[in-house]
Amino acid sequence: MIIKMKKDATKKQYQKLAEFLESKHLEIRDVSSKQVHIFGIIGDTSSFEPVDLYAFEGVDEVTRVSTPFKKASRSFKKEDTIIKLKYGVEIGGDQFVMMSGPCSVESEEQLRIIAKTVKQSGARILRGGAYKPRTSPYAFQGLGEEGLKILRRVADEHELLVVTEIPSSDLLPLFEEYVDIIQVGARNMQNFELMKALGKSTKPILLKRGLSATIEEWLMSAEYIMSGGNEQIILCERGIRTFEKYTRNTLDISSTLAIKELSHLPIIIDPSHAAGRWSMIEKLCLASLAVGADGLIVEVHHDPEHALSDGAQSLKPKKYLQMVESLKKMSELLGKKYR
Amino acid sequence: MIIKMKKDATKKQYQKLAEFLESKHLEIRDVSSKQVHIFGIIGDTSSFEPVDLYAFEGVDEVTRVSTPFKKASRSFKKEDTIIKLKYGVEIGGDQFVMMSGPCSVESEEQLRIIAKTVKQSGARILRGGAYKPRTSPYAFQGLGEEGLKILRRVADEHELLVVTEIPSSDLLPLFEEYVDIIQVGARNMQNFELMKALGKSTKPILLKRGLSATIEEWLMSAEYIMSGGNEQIILCERGIRTFEKYTRNTLDISSTLAIKELSHLPIIIDPSHAAGRWSMIEKLCLASLAVGADGLIVEVHHDPEHALSDGAQSLKPKKYLQMVESLKKMSELLGKKYR
Amino acid sequence: MIIKMKKDATKKQYQKLAEFLESKHLEIRDVSSKQVHIFGIIGDTSSFEPVDLYAFEGVDEVTRVSTPFKKASRSFKKEDTIIKLKYGVEIGGDQFVMMSGPCSVESEEQLRIIAKTVKQSGARILRGGAYKPRTSPYAFQGLGEEGLKILRRVADEHELLVVTEIPSSDLLPLFEEYVDIIQVGARNMQNFELMKALGKSTKPILLKRGLSATIEEWLMSAEYIMSGGNEQIILCERGIRTFEKYTRNTLDISSTLAIKELSHLPIIIDPSHAAGRWSMIEKLCLASLAVGADGLIVEVHHDPEHALSDGAQSLKPKKYLQMVESLKKMSELLGKKYR
Amino acid sequence: MIIKMKKDATKKQYQKLAEFLESKHLEIRDVSSKQVHIFGIIGDTSSFEPVDLYAFEGVDEVTRVSTPFKKASRSFKKEDTIIKLKYGVEIGGDQFVMMSGPCSVESEEQLRIIAKTVKQSGARILRGGAYKPRTSPYAFQGLGEEGLKILRRVADEHELLVVTEIPSSDLLPLFEEYVDIIQVGARNMQNFELMKALGKSTKPILLKRGLSATIEEWLMSAEYIMSGGNEQIILCERGIRTFEKYTRNTLDISSTLAIKELSHLPIIIDPSHAAGRWSMIEKLCLASLAVGADGLIVEVHHDPEHALSDGAQSLKPKKYLQMVESLKKMSELLGKKYR
Repeated sequence: MIIKMKKDATKKQYQKLAEFLESKHLEIRDVSSKQVHIFGIIGDTSSFEPVDLYAFEGVDEVTRVSTPFKKASRSFKKEDTIIKLKYGVEIGGDQFVMMSGPCSVESEEQLRIIAKTVKQSGARILRGGAYKPRTSPYAFQGLGEEGLKILRRVADEHELLVVTEIPSSDLLPLFEEYVDIIQVGARNMQNFELMKALGKSTKPILLKRGLSATIEEWLMSAEYIMSGGNEQIILCERGIRTFEKYTRNTLDISSTLAIKELSHLPIIIDPSHAAGRWSMIEKLCLASLAVGADGLIVEVHHDPEHALSDGAQSLKPKKYLQMVESLKKMSELLGKKYR
Repeated sequence: MIIKMKKDATKKQYQKLAEFLESKHLEIRDVSSKQVHIFGIIGDTSSFEPVDLYAFEGVDEVTRVSTPFKKASRSFKKEDTIIKLKYGVEIGGDQFVMMSGPCSVESEEQLRIIAKTVKQSGARILRGGAYKPRTSPYAFQGLGEEGLKILRRVADEHELLVVTEIPSSDLLPLFEEYVDIIQVGARNMQNFELMKALGKSTKPILLKRGLSATIEEWLMSAEYIMSGGNEQIILCERGIRTFEKYTRNTLDISSTLAIKELSHLPIIIDPSHAAGRWSMIEKLCLASLAVGADGLIVEVHHDPEHALSDGAQSLKPKKYLQMVESLKKMSELLGKKYR
Repeated sequence: MIIKMKKDATKKQYQKLAEFLESKHLEIRDVSSKQVHIFGIIGDTSSFEPVDLYAFEGVDEVTRVSTPFKKASRSFKKEDTIIKLKYGVEIGGDQFVMMSGPCSVESEEQLRIIAKTVKQSGARILRGGAYKPRTSPYAFQGLGEEGLKILRRVADEHELLVVTEIPSSDLLPLFEEYVDIIQVGARNMQNFELMKALGKSTKPILLKRGLSATIEEWLMSAEYIMSGGNEQIILCERGIRTFEKYTRNTLDISSTLAIKELSHLPIIIDPSHAAGRWSMIEKLCLASLAVGADGLIVEVHHDPEHALSDGAQSLKPKKYLQMVESLKKMSELLGKKYR
Repeated sequence: MIIKMKKDATKKQYQKLAEFLESKHLEIRDVSSKQVHIFGIIGDTSSFEPVDLYAFEGVDEVTRVSTPFKKASRSFKKEDTIIKLKYGVEIGGDQFVMMSGPCSVESEEQLRIIAKTVKQSGARILRGGAYKPRTSPYAFQGLGEEGLKILRRVADEHELLVVTEIPSSDLLPLFEEYVDIIQVGARNMQNFELMKALGKSTKPILLKRGLSATIEEWLMSAEYIMSGGNEQIILCERGIRTFEKYTRNTLDISSTLAIKELSHLPIIIDPSHAAGRWSMIEKLCLASLAVGADGLIVEVHHDPEHALSDGAQSLKPKKYLQMVESLKKMSELLGKKYR
């Protein structure tokens, strides 16, 4: 941490701060110039945040120079984390993994039709919402536990894995029973009680980036889970909130590169929620593959016009299968195995 | 809802959409010009979102013209909602209500010192965190249940009310027992499971605006709680996330005016979290009063340098009491009763 | 500047950087810990930007610790700058200065009606656009030179000063002749050729904040003008672009406080462009005064429904005069002289 | 345009508005329901902006349903615009065009070294700044006219075309003489005086997206130029300003798809300014190609550590040539001709 004092800071103000830092066993090293009084502090600063030091009068600016996350950081673990799943699926290595299915599980029949397409495409992970976080209390909220059971049944029939979103920590036992990958939605990324609970789970976690979460905050949420003991985390970029309204969110495709620099965790991209328009999905999938993501999560529906949620961003099976062909060709060119 | 079709939309595409709308008992009224095919739909559209209609091929743009919230809206209820509490405190009427206290409850002794200042200032609501949502898993997480008990004890000694943040719905029984106003933190504003639980609570809810929540989404979260049966909601603006980094967040002072236009619910302002710097608090409090907010929530600490969280944005008692004098004078000028 | 090297940076990479820094006569002071190689550089770094150092392999992060602006900074000049104008008007001292008038000058008759109201309110500065920057090439673009002449004539009749926006540097001679304060629009804040030209002007400059300009960039644009020799600058906050769409822009009221800390320059607020709705203007004006701004710039129109631009955010004379009464009372309370 | 009246709007308020609309020869068509008074207006509304109607009391919300740009819109011209240049270069058709070179022209020698690499890579367009818009007045501002002459000379030697940024309209004659494509920088995108001047130019214009410009505003700036008579416009996405600070800007890769839907104009991507880190350039270039952009503009420098600007985001020749190989392979796969 680097601390810059105000021009008119008094000696006494500095001493008060210095005493505090020394009480934390931190070393102070001066880098002042003639104009400014600046110093670095060396040691373990994880028990407070840079912003806390503004409480000291005379402090002008505090800058963190080391990353606040540890277990999630590339400097803690150099090699890429690879999440190994049933049926030989691996996320984070040389496979490019597709997770696909409907936004919501609507019925066993609906899911069976879509699962067939998913399997036919060569993918091995079935997505589908059983508990749906909707901005309106009057909108369809999902089939709940019944949805989880349908997911499991239909997935097993087709030898597929299941990924679905958990709405709150008290449902964790149910998710442990029915689900292969537990998804955390964007709106819950900083629901820290949920993060703590997931730290005790034995299942891999798909952690979506919050609508306005910085990359650092996103990795801090991963750190919460990892500090609890569960180190199997897959990050998922799904677009951030900006001033631009033509797309539902702004897909931050560069975050994939940032994550690869800062962390060893795998990252996939969700173009459906980012764009909010099915006409953009195919091209964004190709771009995600090209930029180096480890996979995709995409919405597919055989009858999107009558879907109970998010039909607008769902691909129809025919379009989806065409897209997969393009992805397979590009995977080959880039030396990735499409799954 | 207004729907605009694409230039090259076919008759068949339109018919498919029209059938769907008619199946929902909606009436279609045409407003097309020579260049564009546009129509309005009339009736109850609350079971789907505008975006859902993009699933229909040929649809170019869908615009909602009525607000998606009902119980929270000014057109549903014309008169201002006034939340009545013990000790004659009223939020939303002609009182200007101050909630103050430390960021975190650190000990009974600490809280007692600060509560004395709060009482002395003429305020009647004591704030203080027992469960702290921290971005780092390694930072102080609050005293938990013990903190709630201390809050209750110290508040009762000084005839104060208690407002504190709830981290997850399973703690609701505890909060019902110890707390007068239950606070929802910014990061939990779209934790819909929590919203549903709070809809069953008998306590008023202080609902903070999410970091990147639009005013509409914020009111939709209020709607969630209200649709569950609890209509005692106090909104709280606490700054939004923008590109500007000099302040911790950007205080959206105009949101107070927007809320007063759109809703009948009371709204207070939290300048401490918005600015993140104690040097800005006093002036932002005055501006909040001037803009027409119903109150403030402010951090006060007798020893901010050694506070376990957010010391940087806490006022010292002396400074706090000076500020209160300025607020009282301005309240008088504006015809508000300072509490 | 503080530089952090990558974990795997080589000695050779560091040496290449060190040589470069030494060639710039900068001193290097080490603040490394066991985990990280960090050092500060001391001396004049104004010839390059922090980001330039990322060109050196092995560099992980560069942080500026001193402000990049000089003449505009509070540490360069401690006392508030006060801009002295005709008729005893002073901006930046203990006066609270109102600039008001129509968005666009539409005709001599229109301006005369409005100028009468402005004078009657006690204000001394008349605003009005002669050259209008419109997002559409098909919208009214202003009366141009004729507008400037009308402004001068009508202002002189009422003993008022004139502030109006300059669209490009080649019109500077005309503005020098007709105008008292030259306004730079938000969209031109980083038109550096214009900034350079204004550095040679003898008139005070009203520098609006760009739609997405940080406070630092805004002060850097002031620095451009000041470095050219013109130190009479009035900053003007007019709202920033965020995700929130209920208001036209988000008024960043805290920027006033930031400017007062960082700079000695006066700052006024434009609530008309920030809110974009006349119903919000009065309360935002009161909040601006309460937060400590040195004045306001507000749109007034006797017939806003038929105004050629921005009618939506213009106050009618009656409403405007009522508002002025509230502002005068609050000015008195705060010890400011309303002008 | 769709207009929604306030719940408490009076008949008189509606009539005032209706008269205004009829005076503009617009037709009113009702779409009201029991709860809300809503109507559409049909006819040419280009002389005012939706926001202007808020000046009428009783108006609650105005929504535009047709796009405000005409000549730039896909519905005005269905076929893709292809810009034809010397040496057989075509932008907007089936070529994927690379523009590369240094951020700033520093000397004839420097440019000659880099131009050789550009030529060797198969590209035909040389970029390089002669007039540099810098946020600091104390930073290198470019070689000016001398820089233009060097660009022309070196480009001709290697049979390359020249693209470079124009800082203000008075330099247009010089640019007409020396330059093949005139670039408008992000900070000047809404410098409307410059747009008007470029409308008279005979050269193609490379129009960068403003830092916080919506896609609609960007196309409106294109419309400004086109309405002046110059229809040869190449749009350039270069990242937008968001809350995320790990990258310099957030590359909005989806804007390419939005532009292709809304407009017939070609669009290229500038990953160098978006990312601000050379380590991210290659992957972002591949993603840009995959998403369907018509080309790239990339910074290359043989000695980035000593570049006078933006060294951090420049590729070294070796890295650049490797990247070109990857791009060529992917171009082939996607059926595009790499130039």
